[in-house]
Amino acid sequence: MAAETKERIIDVSAELLRRQGYAGTGVKQIVAAAKAPFGSIYHHFPGGKEELGAAAIRRSGALYELLIPEIFDPAPDLVSAVRLFFEGAAAHLEESEYEDACPIATVALEVSSTSETMREACADVFENWIAAGLPRFTAAGLDEATSRELVIGMIAALEGAFVLARATQSTEALHVAGELCAQATRRALKKL
Amino acid sequence: MAAETKERIIDVSAELLRRQGYAGTGVKQIVAAAKAPFGSIYHHFPGGKEELGAAAIRRSGALYELLIPEIFDPAPDLVSAVRLFFEGAAAHLEESEYEDACPIATVALEVSSTSETMREACADVFENWIAAGLPRFTAAGLDEATSRELVIGMIAALEGAFVLARATQSTEALHVAGELCAQATRRALKKL
Repeated sequence: MAAETKERIIDVSAELLRRQGYAGTGVKQIVAAAKAPFGSIYHHFPGGKEELGAAAIRRSGALYELLIPEIFDPAPDLVSAVRLFFEGAAAHLEESEYEDACPIATVALEVSSTSETMREACADVFENWIAAGLPRFTAAGLDEATSRELVIGMIAALEGAFVLARATQSTEALHVAGELCAQATRRALKKL
Repeated sequence: MAAETKERIIDVSAELLRRQGYAGTGVKQIVAAAKAPFGSIYHHFPGGKEELGAAAIRRSGALYELLIPEIFDPAPDLVSAVRLFFEGAAAHLEESEYEDACPIATVALEVSSTSETMREACADVFENWIAAGLPRFTAAGLDEATSRELVIGMIAALEGAFVLARATQSTEALHVAGELCAQATRRALKKL
């Protein structure tokens, strides 16, 4: 029961952080949305909003990480997988009326200079995504260093394209970024 | 005098938004930092925080836009310019202890779903940056469509690399993203 409450609080927080960011999300709002008693936050998260925020970021990060095997593993080849990664993001963003982009980026930009606990959670998520992407590139025959560059380039281009796409309400940047990364991958494979 | 107060309020707001984002910046804090009477905000910005925020974003955007001619125009060639654009950003981020990244991205992610006034200001800034970058690429002989793709790719990769760099406190993503864009530019020029 207590464990269930804790899980619900994390889930609700993850959703609120994704839509509103860290500064815009209050503990009172989390408690109300999770239908949990106010004290339960501090019972489960003695570090308060910061500890809860870090747990929520890690949960969102782990869920989004699943998209990597989900998209890459059934794809016919690596270049197609890279392209599908961006096309899927563009389709999802459009369907959600430009609301559902990355659950980590807003918070990462907001808190990186103010909360070490939250910054570390965001950094760990990005490192986990890189680690999840790497074997898909090395399996295609690319060396570790090239694979790491391609994965980091892909994540960076996706994150930045989300910023432009949300502001301009257009998926143009996602298509452009996807093609940039797909072409870089294609050329790296051609050199093998 | 009144005009000076207005300018000071915009400057102070731009700085606070860059460091703390929109939700984390209160009107009271702006007033205190600008040493302005509380009522002056609503006198100069009848639309309140939202109108002021949009003015601050446009000011920051215009200042950052100046970096494009500043970096691109003296560079020996387009590929070097693209590389310098990212190297300059990496150096500045490191010097500021990972605080000074893009003044628009945090706010763009925060407000795109909640404030149409602020979203439009962010979108206009990105469109102005694209328009400022375009002639540097077409002057090198590239067509409009290719130039637009390269500029959008460069801005997206920079914005996303900032997200990763701030969270991980490493400039790796900026170097990787810079190389990705420099190589794409080099190849586009080779096809001419």
